[in-house]
Amino acid sequence: MKEFFKVTDLETVFNYRNAFERVSVEKADLTDAIGRILAEDIVAEEDLPDFARTIVDGYAVQGASTFGASEGNPAYLTITGNILMGQSPEFEIAPGEAARIATGGMVPRGADSVVMIEHTEIIDDTTIEVYRSVAPGQNMIAVGEDIEKHAAVLNKGQIIRPQEAGLLAALGRQQIAVYQKPVIGIISTGDEIIPITEKPRRGQIRDINSYTLAGLIKAAGAVARSYGIVKDNFEMLLEKCKLALDQCQMVLISGGSSVGSRDYTVDVLSALRDAKILVHGISISPGKPTILASVNNKSLWGMPGHVVSAMIVFLMVVKPFVDHLGGRSATEGGVQRLQAKLSRNVASKQGRVDFIRVGLRKEDDGLWADPVLGKSGLISTMVNANGLIQIDINTEGLEKGAEVEVIPI
Amino acid sequence: MKEFFKVTDLETVFNYRNAFERVSVEKADLTDAIGRILAEDIVAEEDLPDFARTIVDGYAVQGASTFGASEGNPAYLTITGNILMGQSPEFEIAPGEAARIATGGMVPRGADSVVMIEHTEIIDDTTIEVYRSVAPGQNMIAVGEDIEKHAAVLNKGQIIRPQEAGLLAALGRQQIAVYQKPVIGIISTGDEIIPITEKPRRGQIRDINSYTLAGLIKAAGAVARSYGIVKDNFEMLLEKCKLALDQCQMVLISGGSSVGSRDYTVDVLSALRDAKILVHGISISPGKPTILASVNNKSLWGMPGHVVSAMIVFLMVVKPFVDHLGGRSATEGGVQRLQAKLSRNVASKQGRVDFIRVGLRKEDDGLWADPVLGKSGLISTMVNANGLIQIDINTEGLEKGAEVEVIPI
Repeated sequence: MKEFFKVTDLETVFNYRNAFERVSVEKADLTDAIGRILAEDIVAEEDLPDFARTIVDGYAVQGASTFGASEGNPAYLTITGNILMGQSPEFEIAPGEAARIATGGMVPRGADSVVMIEHTEIIDDTTIEVYRSVAPGQNMIAVGEDIEKHAAVLNKGQIIRPQEAGLLAALGRQQIAVYQKPVIGIISTGDEIIPITEKPRRGQIRDINSYTLAGLIKAAGAVARSYGIVKDNFEMLLEKCKLALDQCQMVLISGGSSVGSRDYTVDVLSALRDAKILVHGISISPGKPTILASVNNKSLWGMPGHVVSAMIVFLMVVKPFVDHLGGRSATEGGVQRLQAKLSRNVASKQGRVDFIRVGLRKEDDGLWADPVLGKSGLISTMVNANGLIQIDINTEGLEKGAEVEVIPI
Repeated sequence: MKEFFKVTDLETVFNYRNAFERVSVEKADLTDAIGRILAEDIVAEEDLPDFARTIVDGYAVQGASTFGASEGNPAYLTITGNILMGQSPEFEIAPGEAARIATGGMVPRGADSVVMIEHTEIIDDTTIEVYRSVAPGQNMIAVGEDIEKHAAVLNKGQIIRPQEAGLLAALGRQQIAVYQKPVIGIISTGDEIIPITEKPRRGQIRDINSYTLAGLIKAAGAVARSYGIVKDNFEMLLEKCKLALDQCQMVLISGGSSVGSRDYTVDVLSALRDAKILVHGISISPGKPTILASVNNKSLWGMPGHVVSAMIVFLMVVKPFVDHLGGRSATEGGVQRLQAKLSRNVASKQGRVDFIRVGLRKEDDGLWADPVLGKSGLISTMVNANGLIQIDINTEGLEKGAEVEVIPI
C-alpha cells in the first residue's frame, strides 16, 4: 500500500451523497413510467370521481324511503327510470322512487344511496319490494371520495408503482415528469481478468464483476454501461476513466483488488483534474478497501475486487448514492427487512459493520437465517444466499437464536 | 345474474395452473438475462477456479515453513520468485522458499498457502521475515473451491439474479436458455370507460385498470399488450377476445363489473370455440366475481371491475398463473412476507379469504400494519397501502396486536 489510509464509517460515507447532483428530469408516457421516480408533485385538478357512482348493481333511492324495511315488512318503491352506463341521468329521484342502476353508473340527483339488487324483488313493471334499509351514502362513492380536487396526492421522489400509475390515469395524466435513469459506467481492471468470451489460461479468470454489477445497477433502476476490461496500465485506465466520466453520472472501477490495481486507481484519481478522494477505506467487512472520489461533481468508486465484496458494497454503500442521483427520496424503500432467527453463532469485530450472507428457511416457528460461510471471493456463496444481515459497529457478534433483520438480495 | 354460480376456493383455483402450457424457450445474451427465468439446468464444465488463487497480497509458501513463527521468533524465508498477474508461474516452491504474489495471482506448485504481506518484513533482496504462521490452504482459494467440475449449480425455473449472472459469467456462458416472457392481453370493457386522453363527461370515468394491470404484468416479468376499451357490445368483445387470444398467452378482460358486462363476458366465453369456464367466482374478498376460462390451452380471465379488486386478484390469484406460464418453479419467490403487528381489529367473514390493504409503519418495537379502510373502488387506498394481509378461510377476524404476515405491494 502506498499509504496507510484512515477508514471512514458508513454514516459519514452516506453524508457525501449530497455532494452529487441529481440527474435531469424528462417526460415519460404513463405506460413507460412504472418503476420510475416521479419528478413532480401531483395535485388533483378535479374531484375523483366527479360524479356519485354506485359500487353495486341495484336501485338508486333516497335512503329515507327504505328506513325500517325488512323481509317481513318490505318497502315498496316506484321505478321511475333506468340509468345507462356512462350517461348522466336527466331525471331526479323523489321520496318513494327508485331507478335501476348497474355498478359504475351515475347516481341521479335526489338519490343518496343504492339498494343492492339482492335485497329487492320486482313486483311489476313499475314497482319493487325492498327488504333491507340503506343509509345515506351506502353502496356508492361520493364526489371526491377517492381524491378531492386540489389534494396533493403524490410527491416528487416517489417510485411509481402500478397503483400510482392507476391514480395518474384516473387524473388523465398521459405524460409525467420523471427523473432520468442514472447512467453508471463499469470499468473492469486486472491483468488476470479476461472477457467471458475467452477461454482462460492458467492464472486467468473470467470477468464476473461486470455482470454482477450490471445486474445490481439495473435492479437499482439505473442504466449500466460497460467499458470492458483494462489491464493494469496507468495510461489506459486514465483514458478509460475520462471517457466513462464524460458519458456517465457515476463510474465503478472494479476488480482492482491487487496492490498494483489499487495503486493505479489512486494514481489515476490523482491525475484527473478536479478529482477529490472523499473516502479511502470504509469500516465495513467485506468491502473495506472501497474508494470514493468526486470528479467534477460525478462520483467515481474504486470497488473491492472480490466478487462478494463488490456486490455487498454496491448493495449497502453505492445503492443509496444511486437512489440519491436518481431523485428517489430518502424515506423511500427502507422498510423491506425480513424478521428471522439466526441459526448459529456469528462472530464479528467491534469497530466495523459486518455484512453476513444468509439463506432464509421457512419453518413452522417462522423464518430462520442460515449464515452462508465461505470466502468473499466465492460467487457460489452469493448464489446460495438470499439475504444479508448487518451487524453494527458496536456489536461483537450474534448468538444462535438471535432475532435478526434480513435484507433480501 | 344469469345463473347462481358456485364459488371456488383459492387452492382449487391454483390447481388449474397445470392446465396451461408453459411458454417457449429462447436464447438470451447473459447481459439481457437478469430477471429472466432460467430454462436449462446448469452444470459446471470446469472447476472454478481451475487454479489455486491467493485472496491476499503476500507470499506463496509451504505452510510448514512458517510453523511456530511469531514476532519474537520470526521465520526466515528465501524469495525465489515474483508471480505476475494472469500468468502461470514456471517455478515451484520448496520448503523455506517464498514467492511474491498479489491478490488474484496463481499460487505456484509446491506452495499450499499465502502469508499476508502485513505479517512479513523484507530483510534484503532475497530474504523476508515472517511473523505469523499460516496453515495449509489459508488465504487462498483451492481448485474447485467455488464450484467443482460437474456440479449442478443452477436449476431450470430459477430467476436469474445478479449473482446467478456472475456465476454464469464465471463459467463462460455468454448465451443461456431462458423462458420467453408471457404476453398478456388487457381488454378494458364498459360503456362508462373512456381513454385517459379524453375528458370525461358526467357519468364517464377514465380507464384505470389498463394501467394498473399493465404495471403488475410488467412487475411479474411478463409483457402487457393493451387492446383498448370495448363498449358493452357482444360482437365487438367477441372479436377483440379472438384477436387477443390469438396474440397472447393470457387475456384479462377488465372493467366489466356491471351485470351487463359480466353477462357479455360469459356470453363471449360461450361463443368461443373450445372455451371452458373453469372458475366462476372465487371465495375471496375482494375479487369474488372473478372468472377463469380455458380457451385452446390459453387462459382468459374475467377480472372484477373495481380497481382495488382487480389489483388484488392479479397479485393473489393471477400472478401464480403468470409464474407458471413463464416457467418459474413453484418454490421460487414465496418467502418475502414481512412480520408486523396489526394496529387495530379487522373483521372477516368465515368461508372466504380476505385480503386487507395495510400501510407499514416502522416503530421501535418493530413493524406495525395499519389497515387502510375504504371501498374497493378507491384507487387512493392502494396508493396509501404498501402491503396486503391475508385472513384465511377459517379465521373470523384478527385482533389489534395480532402478529401478521404482510405481502409487500
